[in-house]
Amino acid sequence: MGINSNRVENFSGPACLKTTTGTVVTIPLDMAMPPLQVHKVALPQPRTTVQKLRHRLSEIFFPDDPLHKFKNQTWYRKLVLGLQFFFPIFQWAPNYSFKLLKSDVISGLTIASLAIPQGISYAKLANLPPIVGLYSSFIPPLIYSVLGSSKHLAVGPVSIASLVMGTMLSESVSYSEEPILYLQLALTATFFAGLFQASLGFLRLGFSIDFLSKATLVGFMAGAAVIVALQQLKGLFGIVHFTNKMQLIPVLSSVFHHRDEWSWQTIVMGVSFLVLLLTTRQISIRKPKLFWVSAAAPLASVILSTILIVCLKSKVHGIQTIGHLPKGLNPPSLNMLYFHGPHLALSMKTGIVTGILSLTEGIAVGRTFATLKNYQVDGNKEMMAIGLMNMAGSCSSCYVTTGSFSRSAVNYNAGAQTVVSNIIMATAVLVTLLFLMPLFYYTPSFILAAIIITAVIGLIDYWAAIRLWKVDKLDFLACMCSFLGVLFISVPLGLAIAIGVSIFKILLHITRPNTAVLGNIPSTQIYQNLNRYREAVRVPSFLILSVEAPIYFANSTYIQERILRWIREEEEWIETNNRNSIKCVILDMTAVTAIDTSGIDTIKELRKLLEKRSLKFVLANPVGSVMEKLHQSNILESFGLEGLYLTVGEAVADISSLWKAQP
Amino acid sequence: MGINSNRVENFSGPACLKTTTGTVVTIPLDMAMPPLQVHKVALPQPRTTVQKLRHRLSEIFFPDDPLHKFKNQTWYRKLVLGLQFFFPIFQWAPNYSFKLLKSDVISGLTIASLAIPQGISYAKLANLPPIVGLYSSFIPPLIYSVLGSSKHLAVGPVSIASLVMGTMLSESVSYSEEPILYLQLALTATFFAGLFQASLGFLRLGFSIDFLSKATLVGFMAGAAVIVALQQLKGLFGIVHFTNKMQLIPVLSSVFHHRDEWSWQTIVMGVSFLVLLLTTRQISIRKPKLFWVSAAAPLASVILSTILIVCLKSKVHGIQTIGHLPKGLNPPSLNMLYFHGPHLALSMKTGIVTGILSLTEGIAVGRTFATLKNYQVDGNKEMMAIGLMNMAGSCSSCYVTTGSFSRSAVNYNAGAQTVVSNIIMATAVLVTLLFLMPLFYYTPSFILAAIIITAVIGLIDYWAAIRLWKVDKLDFLACMCSFLGVLFISVPLGLAIAIGVSIFKILLHITRPNTAVLGNIPSTQIYQNLNRYREAVRVPSFLILSVEAPIYFANSTYIQERILRWIREEEEWIETNNRNSIKCVILDMTAVTAIDTSGIDTIKELRKLLEKRSLKFVLANPVGSVMEKLHQSNILESFGLEGLYLTVGEAVADISSLWKAQP
Repeated sequence: MGINSNRVENFSGPACLKTTTGTVVTIPLDMAMPPLQVHKVALPQPRTTVQKLRHRLSEIFFPDDPLHKFKNQTWYRKLVLGLQFFFPIFQWAPNYSFKLLKSDVISGLTIASLAIPQGISYAKLANLPPIVGLYSSFIPPLIYSVLGSSKHLAVGPVSIASLVMGTMLSESVSYSEEPILYLQLALTATFFAGLFQASLGFLRLGFSIDFLSKATLVGFMAGAAVIVALQQLKGLFGIVHFTNKMQLIPVLSSVFHHRDEWSWQTIVMGVSFLVLLLTTRQISIRKPKLFWVSAAAPLASVILSTILIVCLKSKVHGIQTIGHLPKGLNPPSLNMLYFHGPHLALSMKTGIVTGILSLTEGIAVGRTFATLKNYQVDGNKEMMAIGLMNMAGSCSSCYVTTGSFSRSAVNYNAGAQTVVSNIIMATAVLVTLLFLMPLFYYTPSFILAAIIITAVIGLIDYWAAIRLWKVDKLDFLACMCSFLGVLFISVPLGLAIAIGVSIFKILLHITRPNTAVLGNIPSTQIYQNLNRYREAVRVPSFLILSVEAPIYFANSTYIQERILRWIREEEEWIETNNRNSIKCVILDMTAVTAIDTSGIDTIKELRKLLEKRSLKFVLANPVGSVMEKLHQSNILESFGLEGLYLTVGEAVADISSLWKAQP
Repeated sequence: MGINSNRVENFSGPACLKTTTGTVVTIPLDMAMPPLQVHKVALPQPRTTVQKLRHRLSEIFFPDDPLHKFKNQTWYRKLVLGLQFFFPIFQWAPNYSFKLLKSDVISGLTIASLAIPQGISYAKLANLPPIVGLYSSFIPPLIYSVLGSSKHLAVGPVSIASLVMGTMLSESVSYSEEPILYLQLALTATFFAGLFQASLGFLRLGFSIDFLSKATLVGFMAGAAVIVALQQLKGLFGIVHFTNKMQLIPVLSSVFHHRDEWSWQTIVMGVSFLVLLLTTRQISIRKPKLFWVSAAAPLASVILSTILIVCLKSKVHGIQTIGHLPKGLNPPSLNMLYFHGPHLALSMKTGIVTGILSLTEGIAVGRTFATLKNYQVDGNKEMMAIGLMNMAGSCSSCYVTTGSFSRSAVNYNAGAQTVVSNIIMATAVLVTLLFLMPLFYYTPSFILAAIIITAVIGLIDYWAAIRLWKVDKLDFLACMCSFLGVLFISVPLGLAIAIGVSIFKILLHITRPNTAVLGNIPSTQIYQNLNRYREAVRVPSFLILSVEAPIYFANSTYIQERILRWIREEEEWIETNNRNSIKCVILDMTAVTAIDTSGIDTIKELRKLLEKRSLKFVLANPVGSVMEKLHQSNILESFGLEGLYLTVGEAVADISSLWKAQP
C-alpha cells in the first residue's frame, strides 16, 4: 500500500473507492478509518478497594515483579532459583571456566594495584588510620562476591563516603585527641549505614534513592571534590596544623594562614607526582585502551616516592610519612560498636547519610556496567548485598565501602568477567596485609594527597553541568544548589537543599501546568496545539483545550481560572475577527493522568459556569483512573453520555452533526 | 452527515465514495480522514531563555492576566480602571441605587443580629475580652467594604482563627494571669497575620494557599470543631477550672475531673438553649427559605436568656455572666503592638498560622458566592484587602477577622447585593457599642457556649469525608491525618502532617505512574488501553506502550524497568500463544507532560537496550516542552525522522509499510 493513497472505512469487505479522477483503488480492511459512529468511553474494570490497594502496593514495591521466574516451576527448581536469588554466586559458579578465571585474575590484580594506595588514602580522608583502608579492601569484596549481582563492581572504600564520614564525625569528636572514640564512632556509623542500606533493600524502598537526581549528584560530587582537593593541600604542602571543618572558607584560610609551615621540598615532590598522575589520567581518558597506565600509576608512584624518601631521608627532613602499620588480618571489632551514650545520634546520622551516598554510587555504577553488558541488576537486592557487606565490615574493622566508580571502570576495561576479580583483589590485599606492611613505613603523605586529588578531580563533571544548563534550567539550579550548599554550608544541608529544589520543581510543574488551545490538522483526525503546528486550524464554534497535568488541589484553582481566561481571550479574538462565536468547549483530558476530589469539583464548577453562559462543555478521552474517579463521584450522571467522548475528533463530529440536526 | 456513513480523505475536492452496495456518497472536506502521508512532529517555536523565563513567571504569578482590561485604553480610562482595580467601591458606587440599598439594609441587619452574639462568643474562644469581638465586627467590615471585591462576604471574627489564636497563644502566656500581655500578643499576631496576608497578595503568591487541599481542610475543620465544642462544655456545665490545652485528652479529662463544679441549673438552661439553636439550624438547613430562623435565633436566645437570668437572679446563684463591658468605640491600639522581646516569635508564628487559615476561609467563601452569582473574585486582590483590613484592625483593638462562611451564607440568603450590607452591619455594631453595652451585663456564659457549639457543629462535614473515602482513599487519608493530628497533637502540626500527606500523594503519583499497553480499536485510528477497552486488539509485531506521567529523576528508573518488564511479559505471552514476535516498540508520549535530564537519559538508554535486542523503538506525539528538551539534548539526532511520529496510528502505518517494502 503506497503513501498518499485514499482510504475508506467501515466496510464489510475490501473497500473500493472512486476518486475524482476516476481511478478505483482497493484498500485492505486493516487500514480502514473511523466511522462517525461514536465510541463510548469505557470505565476501567470494577475492582474492590483491596484489589486496588494490592495493585498499588505491588507497583510501589515490586514493579520489576522479582518472583516472575518462580512461576510455574517445580519445588526443586524453586529451591535452586531461590538459592540463586539470594546468593548470585550459585548462578555463575557452575559454569565458571579457566578462561574466565584468566580474565578475572588480570583484572583483579589491576584493581588491587589501584585499591591498595587508594584504600590507604581514603582512610586518611575519613581521618581513620591508613590500615583501616586496607582492612576495608579485604573483607567487604569477599562478602560482595557471594551476595552481589553485578559482575563488574569493584568494592572498597570510596572518596565521597570517606569524606562525608570524616566531616560529620570530626565536627563533634577530634580524631587526633580521641582516636579510639573516633574509630568506635566510625565503625558504629558503618554498622548503621549497612543496617539502613539492607533495610531499604529488604523493605523494597530502593526507589527512595531515586530522589537524589543526577543533577543533584553532579553538583554534590563537584562540591565535595573541590573541598577534598583543597583539603589535600595539607599533605601536598606539608602543613601540620589544619582545620577540621569542611567548608570552603575555613579550608582555604587554613591553607594560607599556615604559610610558615609550607615545606618547599614536599611541595616540589608532591606537585611533580601530582602532575605525573594527572598526565597518566589524561592518557587513559584519551585512549581507553591504555587504561592500565592510569591504573598502575598510583602504585608505581607510591613505590617510586617511597624509594625516593628512603634515599633522601638523611638529607631532607620534615617530610611526613605513613609510619608504622601493624601487620596481620582485620581484627574483630564487634566490641567497638557503640550503641549508647551521647554520640549515638551522631553515628546514626552519619551512618544514614554515608549509607545513602555510598548506596547511590554503588547502585549507579552497577547499573551503568550492567547496561553496557546487557544484564540486569536488581536494585533492591544490590542494596541488601551492600548493606550486609557493611554490617559485616563494621564487625571486622572496616568502614563504609561500596562499588567505586573509578576502580569499577578499570575492572571493566581490564576485562573482568565475574565478581571473582573482587576475590583476586582481596587476595592481593591479604598478601599485602600479611607481608608487605613494613614497606609502607617511608611512604610520604604527599603521595596520598596526590592520589586523592587525582581521583576526586574526575568527579567534577563540567560537561554534565553545561548540558544541564542547556537542557533544563531548573535541573541546573538544583545542581548549583547542591554544589554551593556543600561548599559553603555543609554536606547534609547541601544535599537537603538540592532534594528540596528537585521536589519543588515537580510541584511547580503540577501547580502551573501547560494548557493549550488545539486545532485540527486539515484532512486528518489529529488535533494539535495551535501555537506549535502552523498547519493546525481552529474549528469554528469550538474551543478545544488540553491540560497537560493531573488536576489536583494544588492546581485546580489555577486550571479553572486559566480555562476561563482562554475562553475570554478566544471570545475577544472572535469579536475582533468577526468569526462565529464559541458554542462548545472541549477539554482534552488525555494528559490529565490523575484527578482528586478538588479536581472533580473544578470540573463540576466549570460545567456549571459554562452552562450559565450557554456553552456546551464536554470531556474527551479521560484516562482510566480519572474515569473511575469521575464515575465514583457521580459527576458522570450530570454529564451523561453526550458529555464524554473517546477522542476530540469524535466529539467535534458528533456535536456538529447534532447542531445540524437541530439548528 | 449521517452516522455510520463512509468517508474518504486526502482529496482536492469534495470526496465521493462508491460503497459496496453501489451508492455514491459525497462527503464534505472538513470531515475527511488522514492520509498515509506522515506528519512531522513540530518543534515549539524557538524562544530564548529570557522569553521562556518571562512566560514561566507570568504563568506563575499572573495566570489570570490581571492587567488585560488596561490594554488599548486611553490614559484617563486607565486611571479610572486603576482606581477601580485598587478600590472596587468605585466600580459599584456610581450605579448604586435605592433598590439595592433596601436589600442591603435588610441583609446587613440580619447579619448584625448574628454578628453581635457571635463576635462576643468568638472573642471568648480566643481567650480575649468579649468586647474585642464587637470591636472586630466594626472596623474591619468598613475597611473591607472599600477594598474588597466580593459582594457577599460578611466580615468579622471566625471560629477557626479564634480557636487557633487562643490555643497557640495560651500555650505560652496565661490569659487569666497576664491579660494585658495576652491582649498585646493577640493584637501583634493580628498585625503579622495581616502583613503576611497582604504580602502574599502583593507578591502574587496567592496560589500557596492552594496547598491546603479541601480534603485537608475538611479534616482540620472537623477536628477543630470537636475540640471547640468539647471546650465549650466548660461554659455549658458551669465549670470554673479548666485546662488551657487544646488536645482531646486534656479537655475531656478537664470536663470529667471537675464534676464537683458542674452546676445543674446551668446545664439545664444551657442544654435547652443548645437544643433550641440546633433545632433552628436544622429548620434552616431543611428549608433554605427559612434562613432567618437560624439567623435570628442567636440574638433571640441572648435576649431571652438575659431576661431569664435577670428574673431568676435572686433565686439561682453561681451562673457565670459576661459582666461589665465598657461603652464606646474601638480604642486605638498601635501602642499595644509588641515588636521585641521573648514572645515576638510566638506572635509571628501565631499570626502566620491564623493568617493562612483565615485567608483560606475568606477566599473560599468569596469564591463560592462569586461562582453562584457568576462574578469574578481576584484571589490576590482579596488577600491584599483582607490583609490590610487585619493590619488596620490590629491598630484599633481588633483581632483576626475574615469572611465568615456561616454569616456570608446568611448574607447571601438575605438578599445582599453589595458590600454595603457590611457597612449596615458595622453601623448596627456601632449603635450597640455606643448604647447597648450595659444590656449584656447579665448575659450568661452558657448561651455563648451554646452559640459557639451550634456554629462549629456546622464545620463537621461527614458527607464530605464519606465522599472522600468513596472517591479517593489517599485524600481521605490526608483528611484523617489532619483530623487526628488536630485532635491529638496540635493545630500547626496537624496541618503540617496533612500538607505533607497531600504532597506525598503528588510525589507518589509521579514516582509510580500508570503504564499501559495500547491496542487498536478496529476500523479506527484510535489506540486505547487493552485492559480497559475490550474491543481494542493488539497490533501484530508491535508493542504500544503509554506512560501516564512526566518522566523525572524520581521515576526514570521505574519507567525503564517497567517498560522492560512489559516487553518481557509480552514476549512470554507471544511464546505461549504462538504469535508473531515483537519487532517494534512504540512509546505513546501524549501524557508525558514534561521530561528532565534523567528522563532523557532513560529514553536514550531504552533505545540502546532495545537496539541490542534488534527492536525498533519510536516515540509518538511528544508534547511541546518534551520535544524542546529532546531537541536541546541532541537525542533527536539519534532517533532521526523515522523515530518520531505525530500519532500512534501514523507510526504503525508507516512502519508496517516500510516492512512490506523491505521484507
